[in-house]
Amino acid sequence: MSKYDRVYNFSAGPSMLPLEVIEDVAANLCNYKGTGESVMEMSHRSKEFQQIIDDAEANLRKLINIPDNYKVLFLQGGGTTQFSMVPLNLLRKSKKADYIVTGQWAKKAYKEATKFGDIKLVASSEEDTYSYIPEVKKDQFRTDADYAYICTNNTIYGTHYPYVPDTGDVPLVADMSSCFLSEEIDVSKYGIIWAGAQKNVAPAGVTIVIIRDDLVGFADEKCPVYLDYKIHVDKGSMYNTPPCFSIYVAGEVFKYLLKIGGIKEMHERDVRKAGKLYDYIDSSSMFKGTVRKEDRSLMNVTFVTGDEALDKKFIAEAKEQGMINLAGHRSVGGMRASIYNAMPEDGVDALIAFMKKFEAENK
Amino acid sequence: MSKYDRVYNFSAGPSMLPLEVIEDVAANLCNYKGTGESVMEMSHRSKEFQQIIDDAEANLRKLINIPDNYKVLFLQGGGTTQFSMVPLNLLRKSKKADYIVTGQWAKKAYKEATKFGDIKLVASSEEDTYSYIPEVKKDQFRTDADYAYICTNNTIYGTHYPYVPDTGDVPLVADMSSCFLSEEIDVSKYGIIWAGAQKNVAPAGVTIVIIRDDLVGFADEKCPVYLDYKIHVDKGSMYNTPPCFSIYVAGEVFKYLLKIGGIKEMHERDVRKAGKLYDYIDSSSMFKGTVRKEDRSLMNVTFVTGDEALDKKFIAEAKEQGMINLAGHRSVGGMRASIYNAMPEDGVDALIAFMKKFEAENK
Repeated sequence: MSKYDRVYNFSAGPSMLPLEVIEDVAANLCNYKGTGESVMEMSHRSKEFQQIIDDAEANLRKLINIPDNYKVLFLQGGGTTQFSMVPLNLLRKSKKADYIVTGQWAKKAYKEATKFGDIKLVASSEEDTYSYIPEVKKDQFRTDADYAYICTNNTIYGTHYPYVPDTGDVPLVADMSSCFLSEEIDVSKYGIIWAGAQKNVAPAGVTIVIIRDDLVGFADEKCPVYLDYKIHVDKGSMYNTPPCFSIYVAGEVFKYLLKIGGIKEMHERDVRKAGKLYDYIDSSSMFKGTVRKEDRSLMNVTFVTGDEALDKKFIAEAKEQGMINLAGHRSVGGMRASIYNAMPEDGVDALIAFMKKFEAENK
Repeated sequence: MSKYDRVYNFSAGPSMLPLEVIEDVAANLCNYKGTGESVMEMSHRSKEFQQIIDDAEANLRKLINIPDNYKVLFLQGGGTTQFSMVPLNLLRKSKKADYIVTGQWAKKAYKEATKFGDIKLVASSEEDTYSYIPEVKKDQFRTDADYAYICTNNTIYGTHYPYVPDTGDVPLVADMSSCFLSEEIDVSKYGIIWAGAQKNVAPAGVTIVIIRDDLVGFADEKCPVYLDYKIHVDKGSMYNTPPCFSIYVAGEVFKYLLKIGGIKEMHERDVRKAGKLYDYIDSSSMFKGTVRKEDRSLMNVTFVTGDEALDKKFIAEAKEQGMINLAGHRSVGGMRASIYNAMPEDGVDALIAFMKKFEAENK
């Protein structure tokens, strides 16, 4: 086991952070870099915090090559706030939007949007327990839609889009919460990208929003003020007190990622970790993957034995071995190993070794 | 100066936390109480985090005697979200609400509410730079109003309500962000109490809402889902991933307050700290308080020399002495010493000693 007797936490989120980041945060917690105060106590109007948030934004821009015509926001309220903000701000002309539903979060977002406009369900894989990503062609989107919406990685089901839907001139909005910073992306293909931090970025409490500047400023006058992107853009995420500590940790994670070689290196590690776990599952006669192979997530690996009692036994025994939170989401059961960026390769190796042992002992 | 060469941070918020709480959080940051994980990484669905949030709520209930018919919520989005949630949820019958405006936050809340209903400005002290709290009598409130709204402590101006307005049967909503847990209160006099954490409770990113249960469940169907109190009440603040780390620190602060003797003891310390600072200001021939004495805040002590250049010199020299963030809010200038719960009495003593020295040197 790793330093401090830390467990391998396979939680779907909140989830592991790089140990060296946590150690550094701990070492600076009573006195951040000689300022004489904790970042937890720091005025968001101080030059020290301005430096923290500016550095965080600059490093994020570097990591995923965010073009200059995109704004970066650090907001509160999680995905549940974002999926309201999107229709409240983007239903600006035809009041139409097109959604692809590939899991519970996309479905929640779709339902929320129907309160505010003419929302089309372009495709859904619900009838097959969201075990695949539908292939959607350009002509399935309405050309006069104000935007189209997808969730690129489905935490609960373990799927990930193997392609970026071509929506033509219709801005594509992507909830990337559970795969953000695990792969290189072309930001310019999206109108908005948003991601809750609690998977690959930081402790829960901050949501990163990347928004193309021509999409800012269309909220209705009745829009609750916090839900208007423009107020946050105009004030550099400081219209009100931002979640400073989570932004700080996010910034430390961005620095860590740059140090190890950026998203390219991180992605290679993620591919290697997920690859060996899927390879083992595919070779096993006890464990079976639950989703279409082409659509498998690198972050959330879902599998079952086919026997609920055996699943439970597996989860309980893994926990005794310091591998926690391997139960599938309460709505689907089975197992789910969330192996986000900060899960060490050793953790995946330990899991595979344990699965092999369990399989041998429970034939 | 105190341990670790920490500064005295007079910031209006985020602001100081008790050093022993920060030290304990730091010591547990890589491995929280032998769980093998950081609270920053902990699944909000784990029994460990459930214990943290349950303990936080139970200790808060103990600290301020919250009656059983009130729910406690830990939400995101700060005051800016709360002042939208109040009208969106409480304008349920007459669509009328009555506001007293005693500062910028009350004014923002009033303006926001006017988007959603028939809002009456009952009283305002704006014409006198919010330097006092208007005395409002029961018959000034509309008897058919859905609620009345106040901000009990005005961070920017340094005022605090010396009384609880009698609104009869109309539920009173109070933004207590900057005086929460600094004085004993009778929760049963209020319909809703809410407070951003970043003054007396925790790092920014969590807002505590205490709501009487008969006021839950009236949000319009078009209300953005996160802004509906009911979804949070129904799910114990876990409809979505809560700001776990801020909730954890809040819980540690609640434990600390219970340990030192509860709100009664804390209030005595706050009265003593503010008392000696105001006494010195009143005796000084250089420094002058800016608000009516009866309405002075225990938390935010505002004062001026009457000479802007001298104010600036004072703020700059204080900073050199490790007393930071003494500038008044950018909208009013002058000085403001925010001396929240966690400001040690030594910090106030150091400030007074410095003020005396400065006065002697700059006659």
